[in-house]
Amino acid sequence: MTTIDINSDLGESVAGVALSDDDAILDVVSSANVACGYHAGTPHGIAATVKSAASRNVTIGAHPSYNDPAGFGRRFIDYDPHQLADEVLYQIGALDAIARSHGTHVQYVKPHGALYNEIVHNTSHAQAVVEAVRAFSHDIPLLLLPGSVAGTIAQKAGIDVVTEAFADRAYNPDGTLVSRKEAGAVVTDVDHVCARVIDMATKGTVTARNGSTIRIDAQSICVHGDSPGAVDMSRAIRQALDDAGVTVESFI
Amino acid sequence: MTTIDINSDLGESVAGVALSDDDAILDVVSSANVACGYHAGTPHGIAATVKSAASRNVTIGAHPSYNDPAGFGRRFIDYDPHQLADEVLYQIGALDAIARSHGTHVQYVKPHGALYNEIVHNTSHAQAVVEAVRAFSHDIPLLLLPGSVAGTIAQKAGIDVVTEAFADRAYNPDGTLVSRKEAGAVVTDVDHVCARVIDMATKGTVTARNGSTIRIDAQSICVHGDSPGAVDMSRAIRQALDDAGVTVESFI
Amino acid sequence: MTTIDINSDLGESVAGVALSDDDAILDVVSSANVACGYHAGTPHGIAATVKSAASRNVTIGAHPSYNDPAGFGRRFIDYDPHQLADEVLYQIGALDAIARSHGTHVQYVKPHGALYNEIVHNTSHAQAVVEAVRAFSHDIPLLLLPGSVAGTIAQKAGIDVVTEAFADRAYNPDGTLVSRKEAGAVVTDVDHVCARVIDMATKGTVTARNGSTIRIDAQSICVHGDSPGAVDMSRAIRQALDDAGVTVESFI
Amino acid sequence: MTTIDINSDLGESVAGVALSDDDAILDVVSSANVACGYHAGTPHGIAATVKSAASRNVTIGAHPSYNDPAGFGRRFIDYDPHQLADEVLYQIGALDAIARSHGTHVQYVKPHGALYNEIVHNTSHAQAVVEAVRAFSHDIPLLLLPGSVAGTIAQKAGIDVVTEAFADRAYNPDGTLVSRKEAGAVVTDVDHVCARVIDMATKGTVTARNGSTIRIDAQSICVHGDSPGAVDMSRAIRQALDDAGVTVESFI
Repeated sequence: MTTIDINSDLGESVAGVALSDDDAILDVVSSANVACGYHAGTPHGIAATVKSAASRNVTIGAHPSYNDPAGFGRRFIDYDPHQLADEVLYQIGALDAIARSHGTHVQYVKPHGALYNEIVHNTSHAQAVVEAVRAFSHDIPLLLLPGSVAGTIAQKAGIDVVTEAFADRAYNPDGTLVSRKEAGAVVTDVDHVCARVIDMATKGTVTARNGSTIRIDAQSICVHGDSPGAVDMSRAIRQALDDAGVTVESFI
Repeated sequence: MTTIDINSDLGESVAGVALSDDDAILDVVSSANVACGYHAGTPHGIAATVKSAASRNVTIGAHPSYNDPAGFGRRFIDYDPHQLADEVLYQIGALDAIARSHGTHVQYVKPHGALYNEIVHNTSHAQAVVEAVRAFSHDIPLLLLPGSVAGTIAQKAGIDVVTEAFADRAYNPDGTLVSRKEAGAVVTDVDHVCARVIDMATKGTVTARNGSTIRIDAQSICVHGDSPGAVDMSRAIRQALDDAGVTVESFI
Repeated sequence: MTTIDINSDLGESVAGVALSDDDAILDVVSSANVACGYHAGTPHGIAATVKSAASRNVTIGAHPSYNDPAGFGRRFIDYDPHQLADEVLYQIGALDAIARSHGTHVQYVKPHGALYNEIVHNTSHAQAVVEAVRAFSHDIPLLLLPGSVAGTIAQKAGIDVVTEAFADRAYNPDGTLVSRKEAGAVVTDVDHVCARVIDMATKGTVTARNGSTIRIDAQSICVHGDSPGAVDMSRAIRQALDDAGVTVESFI
Repeated sequence: MTTIDINSDLGESVAGVALSDDDAILDVVSSANVACGYHAGTPHGIAATVKSAASRNVTIGAHPSYNDPAGFGRRFIDYDPHQLADEVLYQIGALDAIARSHGTHVQYVKPHGALYNEIVHNTSHAQAVVEAVRAFSHDIPLLLLPGSVAGTIAQKAGIDVVTEAFADRAYNPDGTLVSRKEAGAVVTDVDHVCARVIDMATKGTVTARNGSTIRIDAQSICVHGDSPGAVDMSRAIRQALDDAGVTVESFI
């Protein structure tokens, strides 16, 4: 039987405004990357998302960010790695306390935005993230892009790594994501996205934008919660997986 | 043998600038109220203070605040109590994760600034603080002003309460503190402060500003870490207690 | 010929996410209360709104707030009035510089959220707002609720006051707004709202929720830009006014 | 007669705590780079500094920063240049409104921290700063390090450039500053610093750390306001200039 995890970035309330319909997305996913306050996520909004996730047995992951609320965590900040490690740990701990008050806890870490992208190649920031995860717990994995520097460092440090693919992001033939600055970076056709997800889950492949079929090593598939039509898209993906006989369940 | 706890507000780094000489104060106190980021305290600064406290076996308390970095947590904010509870829990959890990475953990909670003062009388905010502490752990106490509404609510909820006196703050005959807006609110003479502290620890009394002797129920004495001369003052207090045969140790 | 101003709160981007369709609302209104960064409004988002307003000859007003991005400026903060005055002035100046770079400038001030409500009755905060407006310019008015303490203080200080009514908020028989905590506080039926606005503009009256007709002294009508259906509602209001022969133009 | 400007970074209050003795430094300098809130500087603290500067006829410059209060503006942030331009303009306008309420105004711009260093070589960020200054006023100069990319871009855009030397920073033989990460980056001996400043002002030279004499093109000399001994050092520098017959006056 084939199984796959579906994850989504949730809890991204800003100034009391929720940027996604978390309840609807939580009906579909098996893992929730919950904002920790540094790019979005007020504690009360985080608590609502965590409570909703707990009631659906959705696994909670921390989604820490550079300290950049004004930029939604999308901008690289040239941190001292020791400061970064402490800030990531701060965020994980804050979320975990809220999660525990709702009977669940942080079971993995997926960095957000610029931090997520940076640790693909930036050794010192990758080291900082790994150090923070280890300081929190030796037993929870990092959810990362395949092939990242952070993944290598994590595994050396005894931290498990789970890799993910993106349901609606176009891939280059070398397996990297097509930059959002390029046309066609996001696949918006629902049927196309569903077909991709089935391939990712059942064959471990995706069709790159030049038409070639490439291998993609992913135990989880990321769906977006905050784009227009996100709820419909994510429901369609889930239905397609169910119809294909793929079991959606957390990697934990 | 008489024992007393000495506590101080520490970890109050702002923008990378430490507002107190935490290492020096940690040589003197038995309990450290560590800032959690909402009025002061960057994660990296918090970590330095926690590490230093842990190496001296100083007990770590969380020092959560209203979310008011611009006002150093000294201004009342008219929070929704449910939001407040989640924000206090967020702060405790964040500090605890950092503390655990240095082999210690949060063992009590002392609210900061306007929040500390508000829960003396504001039932809904007091309830929120108690709810947050309980959500974090049923087994850690609140450190409060004697006679506060928060203390009553905490005890009903099964949360222990520890009360404190202030080494250098003048008292009214009814046992309340002289407002900082009034002249003479702060006692600055070192010998006078030391004599007061000895009375507090050994007799459970303090001389109010009208000259009357009043009872003061305090298991801990707060010394300031960030005022001019704070280090000299706190060392003198500690020396006076040692000379008087009073054992300084945490209430935990 | 009857004229009325329509104003709306705009520029309320948060973390790069615009909370309203400002271009659509700017097609309808004659005055834009532009966020200044303290409750919402990144400088780049503010600039986009100001540029769009300038191209439509919509008057720019500053919409300053307590410093409370986490609470969207909706919580009272117990400021020192001198600090508040400087913070309001800071916000007006920041917006004005951006407005001037697009060929327009700040022509009035409407406080936001909790500050707007507080200065109805809080003399020291009202004084602070008036002081800030005067410090910026003696020649621009405050846009306020009718009957506020701030209005009285402003007029004594030589600052003009413009008053506003709310298109979709229910009124008590004494002319105050029905609290948002009560059922029926917001009128959602488009035809009903349009009929109210026509009465406000042409007769200076509104029907209170007990059915009585009350006088309402308003040179401007506030429409919401960020509620669901806000664009359709505001377009309907504008159309109704046009059809009734009411000229929509700024009070400046 | 030889004249020189002395500038210092002031107004850097954080959470109500002033990081420098601005009154004392303002007795010595001719130009004040006033924090604008993005790395430090609450509006009320800014106002106090501006008022004090105005009473001493010290010229006010804006000291804008990346939006990084947690990092005191010392970390590079990978901004979109258009966002950066609007953020710099926001800061200048905010300070200018406060300055005008005290009878003065912003007369130059000196970027702070990481932004100051970045625009030495980063063309897009340099362009953003120049764009912001131009949008504010065509008639105020930028105060910069000699030889920066920002200087070249500014002059092409018709913005004047004033260059500065650092009283207490060691220089490499090529005229660049010795990195703060290296030993000897800061000269702490008062007599040595004073002798350097006299050479800078009267000969346009400084002795590099290899002992060679190099030319340094500076119309202003920066003294630090927030380092230990800053007040004594800056007073000594001023006295030395006075004794040498050098007139200290603003470049404006």
